[in-house]
Amino acid sequence: MGMTMTQKILAFHASTDMVRVGQLIKCKVDLVLGNDITTPMAINEFNKIGVDKVFDKSKIAIVPDHFTPNKDIKSAEQCKCSRNFAHEMEIENYFEVGRMGIEHALIPEKGLAVCGDIIIGADSHTCTYGALGAFSTGIGSTDMGAAMATGKVWFKIPSAIKFVLKGKLSPWVSGKDIILHIIGKIGVDRALYKSMEFTGDGIRNLSMDDRFTMANMAIEAGAKNGIFEIDEKTVRYVKEHSNRNYVIMKADEDAVYDEIIEIDLSKIRPTVAFPHLPENTKTIDEVGDINIDQVVIGSCTNGRIDDLRAAAKVLKGHKINENIRTIIIPATQKIYMEAMKEGLIEIFIESGAVVSTPTCGPCLGGHMGILAKGERAVSTTNRNFVGRMGHKESEVYLASPAVAAASAITGKISSPEEVMR
Amino acid sequence: MGMTMTQKILAFHASTDMVRVGQLIKCKVDLVLGNDITTPMAINEFNKIGVDKVFDKSKIAIVPDHFTPNKDIKSAEQCKCSRNFAHEMEIENYFEVGRMGIEHALIPEKGLAVCGDIIIGADSHTCTYGALGAFSTGIGSTDMGAAMATGKVWFKIPSAIKFVLKGKLSPWVSGKDIILHIIGKIGVDRALYKSMEFTGDGIRNLSMDDRFTMANMAIEAGAKNGIFEIDEKTVRYVKEHSNRNYVIMKADEDAVYDEIIEIDLSKIRPTVAFPHLPENTKTIDEVGDINIDQVVIGSCTNGRIDDLRAAAKVLKGHKINENIRTIIIPATQKIYMEAMKEGLIEIFIESGAVVSTPTCGPCLGGHMGILAKGERAVSTTNRNFVGRMGHKESEVYLASPAVAAASAITGKISSPEEVMR
Repeated sequence: MGMTMTQKILAFHASTDMVRVGQLIKCKVDLVLGNDITTPMAINEFNKIGVDKVFDKSKIAIVPDHFTPNKDIKSAEQCKCSRNFAHEMEIENYFEVGRMGIEHALIPEKGLAVCGDIIIGADSHTCTYGALGAFSTGIGSTDMGAAMATGKVWFKIPSAIKFVLKGKLSPWVSGKDIILHIIGKIGVDRALYKSMEFTGDGIRNLSMDDRFTMANMAIEAGAKNGIFEIDEKTVRYVKEHSNRNYVIMKADEDAVYDEIIEIDLSKIRPTVAFPHLPENTKTIDEVGDINIDQVVIGSCTNGRIDDLRAAAKVLKGHKINENIRTIIIPATQKIYMEAMKEGLIEIFIESGAVVSTPTCGPCLGGHMGILAKGERAVSTTNRNFVGRMGHKESEVYLASPAVAAASAITGKISSPEEVMR
Repeated sequence: MGMTMTQKILAFHASTDMVRVGQLIKCKVDLVLGNDITTPMAINEFNKIGVDKVFDKSKIAIVPDHFTPNKDIKSAEQCKCSRNFAHEMEIENYFEVGRMGIEHALIPEKGLAVCGDIIIGADSHTCTYGALGAFSTGIGSTDMGAAMATGKVWFKIPSAIKFVLKGKLSPWVSGKDIILHIIGKIGVDRALYKSMEFTGDGIRNLSMDDRFTMANMAIEAGAKNGIFEIDEKTVRYVKEHSNRNYVIMKADEDAVYDEIIEIDLSKIRPTVAFPHLPENTKTIDEVGDINIDQVVIGSCTNGRIDDLRAAAKVLKGHKINENIRTIIIPATQKIYMEAMKEGLIEIFIESGAVVSTPTCGPCLGGHMGILAKGERAVSTTNRNFVGRMGHKESEVYLASPAVAAASAITGKISSPEEVMR
């Protein structure tokens, strides 16, 4: 009986030939990641262990991104705690305001995630690096603290759902629409503690940024991880961003899956997740008249250059509705610079949007665009739970950058096709 | 006995020929201004008066700038309250996120302040428009509420200190250094409830942005207002930004002043105000070794295009010290765009700074760069009181954009001359 792609990566890092679903194994990890919220708690746990140094100062990354630039005194203290620890332990990958970005955009950009890696992060969207054919998953701060000391972590081997993607996306449809479509189809828990393995000829037609978006939201279907079969695009990306060795793992021909789901990419329409669950999806043709107050384009899900390009393509030459606050957040300083050089930032400002420093900010109700009672946002972020972006009586509609940009122009949830007609 | 420039503007707006110091007069106002913190309180007061409309919907400006983009639910609710009122009253000058900026940069830019105006604002730095030869001053929310209903406000006629500026500034010295020098000289209260009237040949050598910075900080010497004699630069600025009629008021030859202070601009050195008062000034030659953690370049005091140009001139080709967080905040969307087109934003990002949406943010400890315990910032803002930018054991050093930029590079308070050597 063969292994899934995920199982093979886990077996490899446990130095064993074979693993079976449900087995507990101890794996070496290639990167341990924390942010400004989780790192201080992990440091507490680390200190309890009683070692005086981290297992490998090149294999830990600390990225203060949630409440930065410091929102308040508490967040300033959390960053200070993380920074001091990073200095004391000589952690090589501490990213300060000015050099940083949203962790899940920054880590691949900096070449800290490559094919075949195991990456754990004290942040649920650590699953993002599955786009690179790595096993990456969110852990708690306790596990982060222990892993900083030992470089190892226990896993229970997950089973998997295989998604076979076919065909090509229509114009204005992106990775965000695919993953929302999938979550709408399987719900927020059918992949609970499972791998979502994306394969099929269709993935060749997806950009790396599409794949990052999709792997990023695997957790929203409850998955342990999301992972893409590796192709030339993956290898090119990895070589462009990293000098590290990488391992190309492929699922065995006879790997066993809990389900196999075929997705015809050509049939997917721009998709919106209604409050208050990512599974509450409607196609853009079904949304009806939903007036909004705010648009957010950014986050670890959709703050990459492809996302900004899509938004700019829609916004160019248009003015944002005067009642709409539109906040655009490039995910890293590098993406910001790229967007500026391509003229995208100019398009955003001309249209009436503001452009923020990289931050997770509004996605988790942190700062940089919090909603008042009764307000509605269309957002390219990943969660639309009750109160996620502010007041418990506010609403978040999840969508792609193109849909978000179109909605900013009209003041209600809209299709880019409508605006670009 | 003649009148000062301020007294003449007040008399004109009270339709009287003569006023004397200490007299109470009722004046018509040309603009009533509020922000996201003060407007909700003013609306409360307005509602108590029992009128159903504002005195003139073209003469009220509401600018949500302190905690925007919304920092938290409370600030979101404050903005919502202000926005709803603006819509209900059809206030013409409500500036939303995306079209807005820091009020005291935005109002002149939008042509809402011209020579001879009386402008009152529920924000202490409303005195900024004195740069245009207007009488402008901060008021409380109660007065703002009443003025929105009546268009009038009571003033006690202030006496004045006359500052006669001579000569020309040396390179790397700016309006910020002049006003810090003056506050260092006269202290934070010698101008209490007085006008600071700036005159002399030296003002011709000052840019409008230098003048905005200086008038802005008149309140830090306790002044009722700061005001500049009008010259060709003032008139040109007003004509470029506004179609409104303006009145050029000039102090009478025989106007009486409490003091006349001469300032030789050529003698002024880059100046820094040490914690915790703006009067605790030292020249850059006296500062010694002060290590810092953060640099803020922006605010209603120094977030204008000249300020960003000065900072970029210093930062160009340099890397910011790796331990320093540098946050640059263009004061309005227009300034942001101008800075981008001139290549300044690119210089900032290349050097390792982040560029924020327009906001008052860190200046008042609001958001966007709050200090932890023991941290120190060099900031181009206007106040360095205990805890102003965060923790009560943090410290703020006030300086010009050039000094702030130089300090970002070296990691300690530094002269631009040192960096550009």
